[in-house]
Amino acid sequence: MKIEFQAIGIVHSPFKQRSGTPIQPSRAAGARGKVEIFPEFSDGLCDLGGFSHIVLLYYFHQSTHYEMKVVPFLDTQARGLFSTRAPNRPNPIGLSVVELVKIDGNVIIVKNLDMIDGTPLLDIKPYVGEFDSRKNARFGWLDSVRKRTNVADDRFE
Amino acid sequence: MKIEFQAIGIVHSPFKQRSGTPIQPSRAAGARGKVEIFPEFSDGLCDLGGFSHIVLLYYFHQSTHYEMKVVPFLDTQARGLFSTRAPNRPNPIGLSVVELVKIDGNVIIVKNLDMIDGTPLLDIKPYVGEFDSRKNARFGWLDSVRKRTNVADDRFE
Repeated sequence: MKIEFQAIGIVHSPFKQRSGTPIQPSRAAGARGKVEIFPEFSDGLCDLGGFSHIVLLYYFHQSTHYEMKVVPFLDTQARGLFSTRAPNRPNPIGLSVVELVKIDGNVIIVKNLDMIDGTPLLDIKPYVGEFDSRKNARFGWLDSVRKRTNVADDRFE
Repeated sequence: MKIEFQAIGIVHSPFKQRSGTPIQPSRAAGARGKVEIFPEFSDGLCDLGGFSHIVLLYYFHQSTHYEMKVVPFLDTQARGLFSTRAPNRPNPIGLSVVELVKIDGNVIIVKNLDMIDGTPLLDIKPYVGEFDSRKNARFGWLDSVRKRTNVADDRFE
């Protein structure tokens, strides 16, 4: 079964290449950028401005291959791909919860962006605590590694 | 730009049709199901068992159309599509944070499932509080509606 998607917009980011791009919004030090929605979808942004955070789903468009075991940015040993947030995946879909600063027509100004410039946008969802947050969760291998780095290196290029 | 994805697995769920399916994991009353990963991807499940929750990205395969304004399950008035979690979207990708009960070979037993049976799986990511949860968030129109329902009706069919 082949599933075909299309970009609904594009990310304008200060980060032009993978190396040096924040690995997650929580490590992006407030970096700002713009998410431009193509005009035919801009009516769908109505009511979104009341949310402080949004979930962006996007295409890791520079991903060309994947492996089932990878050494994540936050670890020194190989882990199963699906236990990591590595960009090279069978379906290279990225997920980032960013802060919504302002909506200006078909452009969303966001804070704590961790995508590279030119990233194709697949979907926007409102971030809802009841739906997206879990208390008392365990984080597997991530519970045992200490903060290592905030930005990507070239290991997935 | 066309983006082509493939199913990496399939969801086995007690919910056989859209009407009556929980609208979110938080309203699924503990419903259990299985996420079967196709064998060629099962090595990627290594290390995932240490996480209490996982993020599932999947294809709303019964979605055939979309509109830019919809009346969400939790409201009585039309809202911009991207401020809702409605299944009919330009790229019909679902996102659910479910509880991981157990991994048995290429099958993940999960709790609080809100997908219908036969849903094609696109990706699995570990749920990580630092990455996926936000404190002091505002939830727009969802802040003003009270709990209305736990399950879907036929409005998006």
